[in-house]
Amino acid sequence: MISQTAEYALRAVVYLADKGDAPQTTQQIAEVTRVPTGYLAKVMHTLGRSRIVHARRGLHGGFTLAVPPEKLTVLDVVQAVDPVQRIEHCPLGIPDHKSLCPLHARLDDTAAMVEKALGASTISELLAVAKRGEAPKPLYSSEDARGS
Amino acid sequence: MISQTAEYALRAVVYLADKGDAPQTTQQIAEVTRVPTGYLAKVMHTLGRSRIVHARRGLHGGFTLAVPPEKLTVLDVVQAVDPVQRIEHCPLGIPDHKSLCPLHARLDDTAAMVEKALGASTISELLAVAKRGEAPKPLYSSEDARGS
Repeated sequence: MISQTAEYALRAVVYLADKGDAPQTTQQIAEVTRVPTGYLAKVMHTLGRSRIVHARRGLHGGFTLAVPPEKLTVLDVVQAVDPVQRIEHCPLGIPDHKSLCPLHARLDDTAAMVEKALGASTISELLAVAKRGEAPKPLYSSEDARGS
Repeated sequence: MISQTAEYALRAVVYLADKGDAPQTTQQIAEVTRVPTGYLAKVMHTLGRSRIVHARRGLHGGFTLAVPPEKLTVLDVVQAVDPVQRIEHCPLGIPDHKSLCPLHARLDDTAAMVEKALGASTISELLAVAKRGEAPKPLYSSEDARGS
C-alpha cells in the first residue's frame, strides 16, 4: 500500500519524534528502525530536503525532527519520500478523456481516500496511543521501551 | 496506489468485459490498452492462472473473461496480479508486538479501506457508467467508441 521507502521514513520519523531534541545519527536510527544503513542514509537525505528533519553536523550532530510531531502527519512523511499517486489525466493519453473514465475515476477516488486517512494521523498521536498503554510502542519491544 | 501491473490488468479485463464472448488476442488487447505486448503477455498469463481470464488456443483463439463482469470486482483483478499488502505481523519482527503498534495498525487500516473500496466496484459497473453517458468509455476515445 505504501512503499518500502515510505515505511522506512515513517519508522525514522517516529524514532526521532520519540527522542525529542537529542540528535540521532544515521547509525543509531538504522539500528532501532532495522533499516539497512545505506538505504536509511538516502531516506534521511530526502526527509532533510523536504524539511521534515534537520541535520546538525559535527561531533554531537545527527538528525532531529524539524516539525513538531503534533503538526506532522503520516501523509506528510509519505509525500516527502514516495507520494501517493493521484490520477489527474487519462493514463492512456486519450485526448478526449478530459474527465476521467469510470475505471480511473474509481482508482483516483481510492487514492484520495488514502491521502485523507494518512493525513488524519499525526506522528505524536501514534506515540500517544502507545504511551497510554493501548498498544505496543512503535519500534521497541516492551523490554527496550522500559529502558528508553 | 495500485501498481503498474495492476493497472494494466484492469485495462485488459475492462477490454475483455466490453468484448463479451469474442476472444481477443494479446496483440489486440495490447493495442487498445496501450500496454507493451511482452508485458501484457505476462499479465494475461497471471490472470489466466487466477482463472479470471480463459485462453482459447488455435486460429480463432484468444482471451475471454472467465468470470461474468458483474461478479468480478476491481479488487479481484488487483489481488490476482499484485495484491494489496496487508500488515499482519510486526514488519520489524519484534517478538512481543503480537498486536500491531499504532504506526502499523494505522497503515493496515488504510490497506483494509483500499481493499473495501476496490471490492465495492464491479467491472460491469465501470462500463455501465460510461454506457449511460455519464463519463468517457474506459480505453476508448469517443470516436472509437462510436465504431465499437
